[in-house]
Amino acid sequence: MLSFECDYAEGAHEKIMQRLIETNREQKPGYGVDGYCDRAKNKIRAACGCPEAEVHFLVGGTQTNQIVIDSMLQSYEGVVAVRTGHVNGHEAGAIEYTGHKVLALPHKEGKLEAALLRTYLKGFYEDSSYDHMVFPGMVYITHPTEYGTLYTKRELLEIKAVCTEYQIPLYLDGARLGYGLGTDGTDVTLKDIADICDAFYIGGTKLGALFGEAVVFPKGNAPKHFFTRIKQHGGLLAKGWLLGLQFDTFFTDDLYVEIGRHAVRMADRIRAALRGKGYTFYMDSPTNQIFIVLPNDGLEQLQHKVVLSVWEKPDEDHTVVRITTSWATTEEMVRELTDIL
Amino acid sequence: MLSFECDYAEGAHEKIMQRLIETNREQKPGYGVDGYCDRAKNKIRAACGCPEAEVHFLVGGTQTNQIVIDSMLQSYEGVVAVRTGHVNGHEAGAIEYTGHKVLALPHKEGKLEAALLRTYLKGFYEDSSYDHMVFPGMVYITHPTEYGTLYTKRELLEIKAVCTEYQIPLYLDGARLGYGLGTDGTDVTLKDIADICDAFYIGGTKLGALFGEAVVFPKGNAPKHFFTRIKQHGGLLAKGWLLGLQFDTFFTDDLYVEIGRHAVRMADRIRAALRGKGYTFYMDSPTNQIFIVLPNDGLEQLQHKVVLSVWEKPDEDHTVVRITTSWATTEEMVRELTDIL
Amino acid sequence: MLSFECDYAEGAHEKIMQRLIETNREQKPGYGVDGYCDRAKNKIRAACGCPEAEVHFLVGGTQTNQIVIDSMLQSYEGVVAVRTGHVNGHEAGAIEYTGHKVLALPHKEGKLEAALLRTYLKGFYEDSSYDHMVFPGMVYITHPTEYGTLYTKRELLEIKAVCTEYQIPLYLDGARLGYGLGTDGTDVTLKDIADICDAFYIGGTKLGALFGEAVVFPKGNAPKHFFTRIKQHGGLLAKGWLLGLQFDTFFTDDLYVEIGRHAVRMADRIRAALRGKGYTFYMDSPTNQIFIVLPNDGLEQLQHKVVLSVWEKPDEDHTVVRITTSWATTEEMVRELTDIL
Amino acid sequence: MLSFECDYAEGAHEKIMQRLIETNREQKPGYGVDGYCDRAKNKIRAACGCPEAEVHFLVGGTQTNQIVIDSMLQSYEGVVAVRTGHVNGHEAGAIEYTGHKVLALPHKEGKLEAALLRTYLKGFYEDSSYDHMVFPGMVYITHPTEYGTLYTKRELLEIKAVCTEYQIPLYLDGARLGYGLGTDGTDVTLKDIADICDAFYIGGTKLGALFGEAVVFPKGNAPKHFFTRIKQHGGLLAKGWLLGLQFDTFFTDDLYVEIGRHAVRMADRIRAALRGKGYTFYMDSPTNQIFIVLPNDGLEQLQHKVVLSVWEKPDEDHTVVRITTSWATTEEMVRELTDIL
Repeated sequence: MLSFECDYAEGAHEKIMQRLIETNREQKPGYGVDGYCDRAKNKIRAACGCPEAEVHFLVGGTQTNQIVIDSMLQSYEGVVAVRTGHVNGHEAGAIEYTGHKVLALPHKEGKLEAALLRTYLKGFYEDSSYDHMVFPGMVYITHPTEYGTLYTKRELLEIKAVCTEYQIPLYLDGARLGYGLGTDGTDVTLKDIADICDAFYIGGTKLGALFGEAVVFPKGNAPKHFFTRIKQHGGLLAKGWLLGLQFDTFFTDDLYVEIGRHAVRMADRIRAALRGKGYTFYMDSPTNQIFIVLPNDGLEQLQHKVVLSVWEKPDEDHTVVRITTSWATTEEMVRELTDIL
Repeated sequence: MLSFECDYAEGAHEKIMQRLIETNREQKPGYGVDGYCDRAKNKIRAACGCPEAEVHFLVGGTQTNQIVIDSMLQSYEGVVAVRTGHVNGHEAGAIEYTGHKVLALPHKEGKLEAALLRTYLKGFYEDSSYDHMVFPGMVYITHPTEYGTLYTKRELLEIKAVCTEYQIPLYLDGARLGYGLGTDGTDVTLKDIADICDAFYIGGTKLGALFGEAVVFPKGNAPKHFFTRIKQHGGLLAKGWLLGLQFDTFFTDDLYVEIGRHAVRMADRIRAALRGKGYTFYMDSPTNQIFIVLPNDGLEQLQHKVVLSVWEKPDEDHTVVRITTSWATTEEMVRELTDIL
Repeated sequence: MLSFECDYAEGAHEKIMQRLIETNREQKPGYGVDGYCDRAKNKIRAACGCPEAEVHFLVGGTQTNQIVIDSMLQSYEGVVAVRTGHVNGHEAGAIEYTGHKVLALPHKEGKLEAALLRTYLKGFYEDSSYDHMVFPGMVYITHPTEYGTLYTKRELLEIKAVCTEYQIPLYLDGARLGYGLGTDGTDVTLKDIADICDAFYIGGTKLGALFGEAVVFPKGNAPKHFFTRIKQHGGLLAKGWLLGLQFDTFFTDDLYVEIGRHAVRMADRIRAALRGKGYTFYMDSPTNQIFIVLPNDGLEQLQHKVVLSVWEKPDEDHTVVRITTSWATTEEMVRELTDIL
Repeated sequence: MLSFECDYAEGAHEKIMQRLIETNREQKPGYGVDGYCDRAKNKIRAACGCPEAEVHFLVGGTQTNQIVIDSMLQSYEGVVAVRTGHVNGHEAGAIEYTGHKVLALPHKEGKLEAALLRTYLKGFYEDSSYDHMVFPGMVYITHPTEYGTLYTKRELLEIKAVCTEYQIPLYLDGARLGYGLGTDGTDVTLKDIADICDAFYIGGTKLGALFGEAVVFPKGNAPKHFFTRIKQHGGLLAKGWLLGLQFDTFFTDDLYVEIGRHAVRMADRIRAALRGKGYTFYMDSPTNQIFIVLPNDGLEQLQHKVVLSVWEKPDEDHTVVRITTSWATTEEMVRELTDIL
């Protein structure tokens, strides 16, 4: 059955598959100290405009968040995130497992607001017993957010200003970063992110890699012995070149952003169709994720013809549903869907 | 340059690559609840002779050891292993990271001896202050061991008898299990392992998967909510079918053991050549790993022509070197090597 | 200067000091396996009406919460508490340090509402991806709460009913339990608590012990090897009889509740004086803690004459202040305070 | 029955009890920010000859080791200790609980040898795969050791030189430090320890405090927010002045070392008696602990008359027994014991 359930339902982009096939029998050193990783890292540094960046490759998103956050925090510190942030609700407590509290704040359309962040931090240090509490040790944001929304460059700069004021780093979870970069109208580039953030990751799994995320410490500011920390957390891949090879491909001829653009174009067509047919949008998201509100019985009918992702229930009679396009979405699939809608 | 450094230098066995290519554009559910995983699990259950076994797929070996051991132990328990056990020395403290001590015992040719284990456990409970100490909560062994040696069925049964006496589970790390199963003269089958052990994993990464290990709880005895524990440890793969597909291939037409047999055959030829030329073996290992002692200057010459793995230094003038064959070793590579030796 | 800042500003109740002096030179076994601990445990079992209860003594409250919660939870579980619960905000992340998330819900006058708890648990298990989330593994409540309020017996039974429905244990933090038990009008007795809860602790530090909390598992349901868990968490006291001796004294001639009654009587007089002088109460608390709202300049004047505890700022111009009585509060101190007010 | 089982069988030294009684009703601020703590810290700084030292008070020894070691290590580091070190065997895995491996080396009469330490560290960094292993992040020694032996100043300086060479801190567990300082013939003073070590603790529990250990970071080098780390580990005492008061007493008129001297004098008399009667010493220890080897039947007879501590069994027929004196040992008790022997 036709599925718009998520952006990780298929294997890998054909260009990536091609490279895997071509290099399959080559002998390479293990654990990511091979030439493919080196090339990928250099291309990422160039794309970020950060020659001194440290780049590390990991297998999945929760793993990446866990290792990066645990490594950047002191043991008495927690990570500030919005309540809907992936680390707060959907990672099975992977952050707490490493000993750190997620300090959850309210969100606005999935985003953290700089003013709210400042109020929270100010309040923390004004509390006379703050040293009996978890110190806010870093700020975590997602871009695109869990609701497919995007920060503007100004919003990112405002958050960064608060972080600078309170001397805590800003970390950006880019599980779907390519879909954000490939969205018309965004004023946030990869270079901006590298410039503004203290750490971020470029998501591969959802953008057409078999798996893989590239963590970037743009100022050469990776926590000491990050390699050993990855190993200690169980995240080190023996055949590490698989990660290098995939990211080398992503960052050749701008494939990474091109994939994002394609998926957003597909989503735009679906959004237009939905709008035309009078569907209610739950939130206004410009990227590859679309959230619509359906009456429960309408949802049931739809589910006979297409797989969608059930998100949340705003009331007894309605359901929020997510439609997701990806690198693998074809024009034909979109036509099929819009016919059904 | 020719390399016999390790068994994870190449990509994946051609049959696996073929399946990845064929199924690349299929849409599958994420996180391992797909049909490929189901089929692979059923085939593994059949191969183990354990219809009630619970099977879970993970990405890498350290990750697998970390999650299995942490999940099977109570928080006040540690894992008993020989000093040379992979979890004790070469996993960057991944076990301790989860709060558990590795209780290290002396080894004999890389193996744990049942008698020594019994002496240790007896002594523990005879100590009047044992409740101030870390409880031995499980026994960890590797098969083949880090030195390429194999337990006999009788040795495994003796270890199991001690475990039963002290009511602690036996866990077998099978990172190179296929190479053990494919060795002439072993009397240990996969069914024996499933019968004797409380948990074990069937290594994929070193046997010709891109990555992947299959954890088996043969008596349906997986720790509760093992899926969530995997997620919490950062080990859940979004495109979980990749693991199912690879193990489905391994367990079709006995490919897994066949791969093992091939590599051991290649190693046997190298062993014969070494013996013929008077090389000194460090340990007598029958599987795909060969350990020889070289004078330091001889080693240096060799390193100009072939990549080997430097293991340890028994004295100032000699070095122990490891030669490893794998699923990817060809007869031509073996000929080249024996010419060099 | 006169202080009503907290209930742990002085040493120990005179009866406790007396026993410490009398027994100082006796030789006793270490680590709590002495006769005083035995006697105290028996008296607590009798007072709880639970002959089969397991009782353990610990030094402090955060330590107790940390060890009890960590020991009762599976590693993939978190603890449900209201946002103002001590474990959520004021223990420096001691719960998260052990790997568990605090699942925070809104409070009503510091209390958890059974209906809200049910809604949360129902929603959790209805979410199709709940196994990607932290499982609610136990419920934590305080009695008296952080705002000095008390549950009714009916409220406790309602919460317990939800816990039973979802098969998770109920744990009660009784840091100030004696002040709750000693409050006129409460219908909750120690026996009720032992009957309703799966675990709770009887607070000593704030009731006139030098230090010490008594954890009770009323159904003999202590986590296995709880002694070793205490040691592992760094909580085992070498001279454990100090704890036994103090609780033996508390539970001789009903001293524990008598202390509570005295402090509440003192607080009642202060409440009457405050009411008479038109002060605004922030919350209506019947125990030894009183929360009043003061204009900021009024607070400053007061602070020249008496030490109070600054709690929170409901707005720019006002401050919530806590007045606390204790076992050590004398009638003269109360008179002095009411003169100042 | 007469007991020489340990040095924590009685309550507190009379001078300490006296201060507790005198100050019982005073109102003091909580959590160790009171005047008694300040005075005690100043006196300790003076005794150490380190005006810039940071001093923190904790309740017990395992707790102290856990918090200090966890706070000083990076997460990928372990602590080097001899196999008989308290942290390795007798703290129920408290160090591993915080995520760190104890890297155990052989001991010589309970002590770590500088040469062995250097060999280990050298070997670690020469191993080509050291970044897959636990980094040695600090060195832990005890003084007196678990066998009552003492380092010479020269031995300490040699260990320190190795630490300096490898840039890792040296931490000294002084659970029985006073007994070491009070031993005739030692050339190690408190000032030497403060000069040589990066962190150490002055044990109170075993020297006649009700409880309490003073951690000293002699160069003002406490890990950041050590107070909050103590709280997070559950180690913060509400009535913190109890600790300050006891250490203020210890460091008034040299009481701390005087207590040590007394106990060692008592032990010397017992040693002389044992020697005279032909007993076999297991190890030559000059402090308050005496280890003798007894035939098993001789031990049984002795146990009818005096409580001793059974240590280990060197063979089937013999037992090593520990006799311990303390601040509370009287001349009469010693006479009684020597009569029995």
